[in-house]
Amino acid sequence: MTINYKSLAINGVQNLQPYMPGKPIDELERELGVSNTLKLASNENPMGPSPLVLEALDKAKASIQLYPDGNGFILKQKLSNMLKVNQNQITLGNGSNDVLDMIARTFLCEGREAIYSRYAFAVYPISIQSVNATGVVAEALPVDHETNPYGHDLTAMKDLINDKTRVIFIANPNNPTGTWLKSDELHEFISAVPKDIIVVVDEAYFEYVQEGEYPDTLQWLEEFPNLIVTRTFSKIYALAGLRVGYAVCSAEIADLLNRVRHPFNVNAMAIEAATAALNDQDHLENCVDINTKGIKFWRAACQYRGLDYIPTVGNFITIDMEQNAVPLYEAMLKEAVIVRPIPNYGLPNHLRITISTAEENQRCLDALDVALEQYPID
Amino acid sequence: MTINYKSLAINGVQNLQPYMPGKPIDELERELGVSNTLKLASNENPMGPSPLVLEALDKAKASIQLYPDGNGFILKQKLSNMLKVNQNQITLGNGSNDVLDMIARTFLCEGREAIYSRYAFAVYPISIQSVNATGVVAEALPVDHETNPYGHDLTAMKDLINDKTRVIFIANPNNPTGTWLKSDELHEFISAVPKDIIVVVDEAYFEYVQEGEYPDTLQWLEEFPNLIVTRTFSKIYALAGLRVGYAVCSAEIADLLNRVRHPFNVNAMAIEAATAALNDQDHLENCVDINTKGIKFWRAACQYRGLDYIPTVGNFITIDMEQNAVPLYEAMLKEAVIVRPIPNYGLPNHLRITISTAEENQRCLDALDVALEQYPID
Repeated sequence: MTINYKSLAINGVQNLQPYMPGKPIDELERELGVSNTLKLASNENPMGPSPLVLEALDKAKASIQLYPDGNGFILKQKLSNMLKVNQNQITLGNGSNDVLDMIARTFLCEGREAIYSRYAFAVYPISIQSVNATGVVAEALPVDHETNPYGHDLTAMKDLINDKTRVIFIANPNNPTGTWLKSDELHEFISAVPKDIIVVVDEAYFEYVQEGEYPDTLQWLEEFPNLIVTRTFSKIYALAGLRVGYAVCSAEIADLLNRVRHPFNVNAMAIEAATAALNDQDHLENCVDINTKGIKFWRAACQYRGLDYIPTVGNFITIDMEQNAVPLYEAMLKEAVIVRPIPNYGLPNHLRITISTAEENQRCLDALDVALEQYPID
Repeated sequence: MTINYKSLAINGVQNLQPYMPGKPIDELERELGVSNTLKLASNENPMGPSPLVLEALDKAKASIQLYPDGNGFILKQKLSNMLKVNQNQITLGNGSNDVLDMIARTFLCEGREAIYSRYAFAVYPISIQSVNATGVVAEALPVDHETNPYGHDLTAMKDLINDKTRVIFIANPNNPTGTWLKSDELHEFISAVPKDIIVVVDEAYFEYVQEGEYPDTLQWLEEFPNLIVTRTFSKIYALAGLRVGYAVCSAEIADLLNRVRHPFNVNAMAIEAATAALNDQDHLENCVDINTKGIKFWRAACQYRGLDYIPTVGNFITIDMEQNAVPLYEAMLKEAVIVRPIPNYGLPNHLRITISTAEENQRCLDALDVALEQYPID
C-alpha cells in the first residue's frame, strides 16, 4: 500500500505555499555565470553592521559550544532600558518572522480568523494558514489614493472584524509597498478594535521612518493591552544573517508567547551582536541619513523617467513598470543587478528595489535604464 | 472590562509549561557570587568546535547583513554527500528542537495523538501540546531491567497505537537517561508500526555511540517511508550556541516539513560553521575518544562509591542519589560545579552529569564527594 503522506498533514500545511526568498547571490552567480553582483532584492542594509558588532562576534566565537542564554538576559536588559519597558514585556525571536509565528501559534487555530491587508508582508498568511486558521484579506487603498496608494485601508480592516477574529496584522511601514499609517489614524483604529482581539503592529522598518506623524506605538501599550509591537535587527541593524527580532507587549501576553517560543530560539552570537548593535547610535543615524538621501535619489530618478512609484518611508522603493516586470528584472540580472519582482504580492508590474549607497543606487539605476531601453514604458 | 488574555490562547498553550533550560553560567555566577564555574549541566562538548569552524566564522562575519541562504545549499550538499541521501531528503532546523517542532506542526493537531516514552526528551510533550494534540506516555522499562533500565519499552509503545496516533517519538540514545535501542529491536518495532504513522528517531547523541548493535537508521529510509531521523550539531559538533539540527526522511515528507519551516530558520553563521565542522573528522574522533574514556571514569567512580547509574552511551551519565538530589546539586553549586537535577523528568533522585575531559570529570567528582559527605547514601 502506498501512502500519500501529504494527505496526513494538517489541512493548513497541505495547501501551504512556502515563502519564496530572494535568490542568494552565490546561487544566482552560479546560474548566470556572473560575478560582482549587486543584490538590492532583500532590503538588507548596504552599510553592514556597526564595528562594535564585529568585535562582539569575535568574543562570542569562543563559547559557541555552549547553549545560548534561553532568556537572552543581556539583550532584553538593553532593550528594556532603551525602550522603557519591563524585561517581561519582551519576547525575543529568531528574526521577527519567529515572533509573528508565535503570535499565530498562541492565538489562532482552526475556526479562528486573522485579518491583514492586501499587499501586506507575505509571512502573515503563511503563519495563519500553518495553524489551520483562516486569513481574511482587507482590500488596500486604491491605486490612485492621494497620499497612501496601495496602503492599509483601516476602515476596510475594521469592517471585516467578526466573532471569529482573533488577530489583526498591520505592517507599518508595510513591505513591499513602503506605505505607512499616521499616529492619529492608527490610534483611532486600535481604539475601535475590541480588546479581546490582538492587534499586531509590525515595525520592521521602524528605524528608517523620518516622519513626524509616524506613531510611537510603545507609548500605547498601557492603553491597549491587546497591542503587540514587533521589530527586527535584520534591517537597519544589518543583522539579517543572524536572525533576531522581538515583540513588545503586556507581560501577560509576553508570557503566552514565551510558552510557544523554542527555549533556545535566538542563537548565542545573535544575542551578543544585537546587544552590541544597540550601543552604536551614530552608526544607526548614518544609515538613516544614507537611506533618506537614497529615497530622494530614487524619487527624482523615477520622476525624470516618468515612472510611478509607491511613496516609501522604508529602505526600498517599489516602482510601477506598467507592464510585466519580470522581463525587466531579467534584463537587470544580465547587468549583474538583482532586484525583486513581486507577483507573489499581487503586484506583477512592480519591481521592489532596496535603497543603498549613492554608488550602488546609481549602478542599479544604470541597469534599470538598460532594461528600460529594451522594454520601454509607453 | 478586564480581559483574561490567557483564556484567549489556544487550549494547548494555556496549559503549556515551557522547557526549563539549565542556568547559564553568567546568571549563576551572578546569583552565587562565584567564578571559574564548571558547567556540566547541558551536555555540551567541552572540547569546543573544530578550528575549521572558527575560521569559517571569521569569514562569515563579513556578510551578516545579508539574509542566510534559506535553502542552506552548502550545508545540505555536504550532508547529502556524507550521509548518501538526496538534498531534498534533508530539512534543516534552528537546532533539532526546531525540526521536532516542525514534525508536530505538520502532522499533529487537536484530536490527534503522539506517543513517547516516560523519561524521554522534554521537547516532545511541549511540541505536541503546543499544537493542541494529545501526548500519550508509554511506561519505560523497569528500574531493575537487566540491560536497559529506564529505557524505551517498545512493546508498551506499540500497545498504545490507535486510530488517532499520528506520530511516535523515539530518542536513541535518550536524554536524560542515556539508554539506547539495538538495531534489531528498533527495526522490528518500526516494521510493526502502520505506515501512516510517522516514526521519529531522534539521534541527537548519535556520534557518541560506540556500540556495534546501534542501528544505522538512514539505511532504512527506503524500507520505511514513514521514518524521520533527526540529528544535531549541538552535541559532538559543539555548536549548541549556533543552533543547527536536521531531519532526514523521504523527499515527500521533507517537502511537508519545509512548508512549516521558517524561510530563514538557520542563521548564516550556523550554516557556515556546521559545514566546516563536517570537514574535521579527526576532531570528531578525538571528542568520541575523550567521551568514551569519560564514561569509563564515571562508571568506575560510581561503582567505587556504590552509586547506581543508568548505563549510558551518550556524553552524560545519570546517577541515582537514593534521595532528593536537589540538596546534592546545591552543595555542588557551592563548589562552583553545575550539574543537572531532573525532577522535571520524573527522576527526582537522579543527577545528570555531562561527561567532560579527565580534568573536569575529576573536578566534578571531587565536588560530588563533598556533597556526598553532607548527604551520604545509606
